[in-house]
Amino acid sequence: MVVHVLRIGHRLVRDDRATTHVCLVARAFGVEKIYIFNGEPKVKETISKVNQRWGGNFEVNIIDNWKRILSEWKKREGIIVHLTMYGLNLNEVMDEIHKSSGDVLVIIGSKKVPVELYKESDFNIAIGNQPHSEVAALAVFLDRLFKGEEFKREFNHAKYKVVSSKKGKHLEKLI
Amino acid sequence: MVVHVLRIGHRLVRDDRATTHVCLVARAFGVEKIYIFNGEPKVKETISKVNQRWGGNFEVNIIDNWKRILSEWKKREGIIVHLTMYGLNLNEVMDEIHKSSGDVLVIIGSKKVPVELYKESDFNIAIGNQPHSEVAALAVFLDRLFKGEEFKREFNHAKYKVVSSKKGKHLEKLI
Repeated sequence: MVVHVLRIGHRLVRDDRATTHVCLVARAFGVEKIYIFNGEPKVKETISKVNQRWGGNFEVNIIDNWKRILSEWKKREGIIVHLTMYGLNLNEVMDEIHKSSGDVLVIIGSKKVPVELYKESDFNIAIGNQPHSEVAALAVFLDRLFKGEEFKREFNHAKYKVVSSKKGKHLEKLI
Repeated sequence: MVVHVLRIGHRLVRDDRATTHVCLVARAFGVEKIYIFNGEPKVKETISKVNQRWGGNFEVNIIDNWKRILSEWKKREGIIVHLTMYGLNLNEVMDEIHKSSGDVLVIIGSKKVPVELYKESDFNIAIGNQPHSEVAALAVFLDRLFKGEEFKREFNHAKYKVVSSKKGKHLEKLI
């Protein structure tokens, strides 16, 4: 299963940090690629440095046409999931998500999202019905999707690797 | 079980949005109170508006002495959990966390965290060993702690309530 993320509604400057967090979460939780609508190239550079140090091939794509991504995904075998506080409860739909085959496109917005997205998505899922954070919503959804397996993933050609420990910080230099 | 969050390492301006996201996640995921070391009063106002609209009694406390919070919690029945990419894998420690009784203090840092915290915490837990986001780490930890029950919680004296729906946005006005 390949998972991509589409980030919509990024507001310049104001959302820079949140979008960086979204990218870091996507990368750390096993997503292969993120599309950022109207994002800033700076985010791409930040994540590229993280890849160099911590490994993996996570890809950041700044796009100016999110409808194209959506229509490409419509043709693909898989599902389109839109995370929104107005959607169906996560606890009630995860079984159905796990039963569906193919790849997954996860769409996350910011404050305002075009109504079209609610209609075009196969699932509108609420990570709770309270306002919180797209960073958190993405993380919880991916954790449920991969059932905790995302934390066992190895990142190839990493320069550093953390060695889990009870107390303190252990970092292994690989290259 | 009462859960409080202690947010350390907030860097002024740079971390404002992330800290707001942390507060929103804490509130939405069933935490009762957050302590923000060196935080800005603006965050408190933002969250107070969210409480007014969406209900609940979530409390934001700006503090200037995190060691006092820690020593108060040391005397209390419960555990202190520090979320860090250097800690033990979440998948391996959650059983033990669920077996422990009493309240939970969850500590989340930013870039740099005093070494003392690693020693004073009962558990140093990694939400994966890759760098990502304290917002995401907190959300995933709370989701595992409450086992999805956090999304069933009702918020008292709310003005608005979301009605989950398959497509579209449904908001109920309560007052």
